[in-house]
Amino acid sequence: MQARRWLKRQYEDAGLDATLDGVGNVLGRSRNSGKALLIGSHSDTQPTGGWLDGALGVIYALEVVRALAADRSTQALPVDAVSFQDEESRFVGCLGSRSLIGALTPEMEQHAQDSEGVKLSDALSETGLAEVPRERLAPARYAGFIEAHIEQGPHLEDAGRRIGVVTGIVGLRSIRFIFRGQQNHAGTTMMAHRRDATTALYELAHRINIEFPRAAAERTVWTMGRVRVEPNATSIVPGYAELDLQFRDQSEQPLDAFEAIVESLVAEMNARGGVTIEALPTRAPIAPTRMDADLQMHIEAAAERNAPGNWQRMPSGAFHDAGIVSASIPSAMLFIPSIGGISHDFAEDSRDEDIVLGCQVLADAAASILLAVNSGR
Amino acid sequence: MQARRWLKRQYEDAGLDATLDGVGNVLGRSRNSGKALLIGSHSDTQPTGGWLDGALGVIYALEVVRALAADRSTQALPVDAVSFQDEESRFVGCLGSRSLIGALTPEMEQHAQDSEGVKLSDALSETGLAEVPRERLAPARYAGFIEAHIEQGPHLEDAGRRIGVVTGIVGLRSIRFIFRGQQNHAGTTMMAHRRDATTALYELAHRINIEFPRAAAERTVWTMGRVRVEPNATSIVPGYAELDLQFRDQSEQPLDAFEAIVESLVAEMNARGGVTIEALPTRAPIAPTRMDADLQMHIEAAAERNAPGNWQRMPSGAFHDAGIVSASIPSAMLFIPSIGGISHDFAEDSRDEDIVLGCQVLADAAASILLAVNSGR
Repeated sequence: MQARRWLKRQYEDAGLDATLDGVGNVLGRSRNSGKALLIGSHSDTQPTGGWLDGALGVIYALEVVRALAADRSTQALPVDAVSFQDEESRFVGCLGSRSLIGALTPEMEQHAQDSEGVKLSDALSETGLAEVPRERLAPARYAGFIEAHIEQGPHLEDAGRRIGVVTGIVGLRSIRFIFRGQQNHAGTTMMAHRRDATTALYELAHRINIEFPRAAAERTVWTMGRVRVEPNATSIVPGYAELDLQFRDQSEQPLDAFEAIVESLVAEMNARGGVTIEALPTRAPIAPTRMDADLQMHIEAAAERNAPGNWQRMPSGAFHDAGIVSASIPSAMLFIPSIGGISHDFAEDSRDEDIVLGCQVLADAAASILLAVNSGR
Repeated sequence: MQARRWLKRQYEDAGLDATLDGVGNVLGRSRNSGKALLIGSHSDTQPTGGWLDGALGVIYALEVVRALAADRSTQALPVDAVSFQDEESRFVGCLGSRSLIGALTPEMEQHAQDSEGVKLSDALSETGLAEVPRERLAPARYAGFIEAHIEQGPHLEDAGRRIGVVTGIVGLRSIRFIFRGQQNHAGTTMMAHRRDATTALYELAHRINIEFPRAAAERTVWTMGRVRVEPNATSIVPGYAELDLQFRDQSEQPLDAFEAIVESLVAEMNARGGVTIEALPTRAPIAPTRMDADLQMHIEAAAERNAPGNWQRMPSGAFHDAGIVSASIPSAMLFIPSIGGISHDFAEDSRDEDIVLGCQVLADAAASILLAVNSGR
């Protein structure tokens, strides 16, 4: 809350009408007339995350507002700045951007609690936000939204490029498998009589890893990084286990193919009897999102002006607030390289000259978008 | 501590010289002369365990002392009763019996802590036991040790038998696998660049389940019921994971064969690069133990007298204090049936008539052993 109030003062000092809204979004609206451009990102990160993550895009937005105001040719252009609440999903992934575009449902909010059982509603009450009004984007106000972000992967660095113009954000689906067997003593229960939940879990997980490559596209990824076993003791045959599977691609086709593989493996294993496997979606699927072509074109032109030949088009393998906002207004993203591709880690960093270049490209693109849309071009 | 003090008073009321020793064992020594028989078990159970587990054998011992004292033909026979501390391994598995036979090493004691980090030494200080002397078995005093216990498995019930005479306690070995990879973002890290600790875990576990049956004997069992993944999050490629493997048999041969399979699988997977797998023993292996043939013969005869044709010989798939005590004095066990084979669960139970019969067989066997050894037969 201290950081949010600090940011609100920075917005005000930069000449914006700033609000800290009822879910914790900080929004600064320009007083300039004409179609506005919204710029920003989120200021939270993961518990052991790094200093750039979403904060880079938040500070870029502030700097673009200041920079355009300092130049006579751009000082009349309306740029709004935003810092979204809770992108990383302490309570709800992209809570702030969902709320801002009106996509946060009462059901999502009702069930929202963090991993320690703290409810979103209680957290909002404690911080004094529960009674504060929530902001809502007026789509008609905007030419679009641009989010700048660190890449969080190694592609730009590996390719020796300094700017990534994001073509789209990959779609994501996830399934939680629930394995139900019979808890037993690990010494007295013979193998033929066991219904061991983990035996089924290991088999299903390994067979997914064997079968998915046949159906994967070039950049399809899948992860089974969360396991829960009960009672999770060396000497007890477990009667219950959970496994989370998450998979992502920029097109729906491999995601559909993966779901078909999963369905067939689960049906085959359930037909054997013994452990029963239930497969449930753990969140609403995220459809692959295309970034706005016109905004992309402006960012590409700005990248070519500031770093000739040193930029590239690329999809985003990570999800971002721009994927939410794009449902309401045209949206685009630009990436700067992450050193060693490391993110969500204290070691996360980018080269100073890349941080500076990214903001120059963003400011240049913002000016060119706003000049084009407000001149009727 | 209240229960232990209560038990000590029961021992005293039954005419025994009773002590509550420095690790929490309750030991009652008979004042009768001649070679003595030690009878007993443990009074702890698992957190959600049942009412019989070790408590049955503890109360049987008290009842046998009382019963033999009540009959002129047996009142001179020396029976000692014991309730062992911490069989279930809050701190150290079979802590009390290890201590009583002198097999509790300073190293074991130094490292002993429970799953919440409470140290054994602190627990002993808090209960006032730290300054209390520890009892030690004098092997020369004893003809042997008998532990009665519920079966904790379904074999007696399935076979329609009421008494099991234990031939031996299975050996047990356990290995903890440690998988070290690289933690990464689950969206931006392409499959070819991943070093996912769980991918290796699922493969190794499933291949163990495929390969072990080839090397298993009729009653060999293995369990992989404990998994730990870091950071265990749906959206993060895990860089670290642990898997516990435990395996048991009544002979060393399949246990050796399993270790060879594990070694070869781990070597093959490590040779690929990527995730590294380390295999560490998680506890000192327990060798298969034979129960004393002479004591078994007396128990069989007593079983046949009390339940003609309704008893059987069988190995114990679970470990017991008798497996520790047998290193010091001749030891034997008898089982009564567990309803539905259920144990370490609130639902654990045995039929009243089986509980009564088990104690009759034990008392009968105890008298026959002591009469034989003290008459020089």
